[in-house]
Amino acid sequence: MTTTGPIHDVISSKRVEGTNVYNTAGDKVGSIDHLIIDKISGQVRYAVMEFGGLLGVGTDRYPIPWNMLQYDTTKDGYVAPLDKAQLERAPRHGIDEVPNYDDAYDSSAKTYYGF
Amino acid sequence: MTTTGPIHDVISSKRVEGTNVYNTAGDKVGSIDHLIIDKISGQVRYAVMEFGGLLGVGTDRYPIPWNMLQYDTTKDGYVAPLDKAQLERAPRHGIDEVPNYDDAYDSSAKTYYGF
Repeated sequence: MTTTGPIHDVISSKRVEGTNVYNTAGDKVGSIDHLIIDKISGQVRYAVMEFGGLLGVGTDRYPIPWNMLQYDTTKDGYVAPLDKAQLERAPRHGIDEVPNYDDAYDSSAKTYYGF
Repeated sequence: MTTTGPIHDVISSKRVEGTNVYNTAGDKVGSIDHLIIDKISGQVRYAVMEFGGLLGVGTDRYPIPWNMLQYDTTKDGYVAPLDKAQLERAPRHGIDEVPNYDDAYDSSAKTYYGF
């Protein structure tokens, strides 16, 4: 990476919430509902997506590991390597549910998304 | 720190937004409006507070370094070592302004808050 000057590339949590997510083919796959943050370190661990695009269902939430998302200024949204088949089997939870974000959850998410 | 089991201590960005902030004396000093997040790393750098407590003004926003905030379950809010005199001189910006979160800003914030 080359430096782009002294300005840090930061974003407001409120700006992230509601931002669209696209797959690498350019299709909208959903939007970010909220972020899951480690209380102590302040590290964002998951961006929890709702889907309104490819799958057309809005009843589940999909926690996507933060480092899968890349901001694309031309799309004004995030791009993630998520194909439809992958999303159909992806870890998810109901709107009012909060998963147990433990080590096992992290491991299964990492395994699922292949990193 | 002792481990408290396999559950990670995480929180939703939407839960953080609106959460009260208290000083170490137990007085409410404000609430968190939004978080400033490093786009690449996903690290939360500042919790931007609005004040409605000690100072009684709601027109400015105060970026507080994330690591100054400790969550207190008995208060259902964050506690930070912020006294009134310190807040009156603290770095702030208008509601619709976005500061230039560059290295100089970080340095001055760290110096101001004394770490």
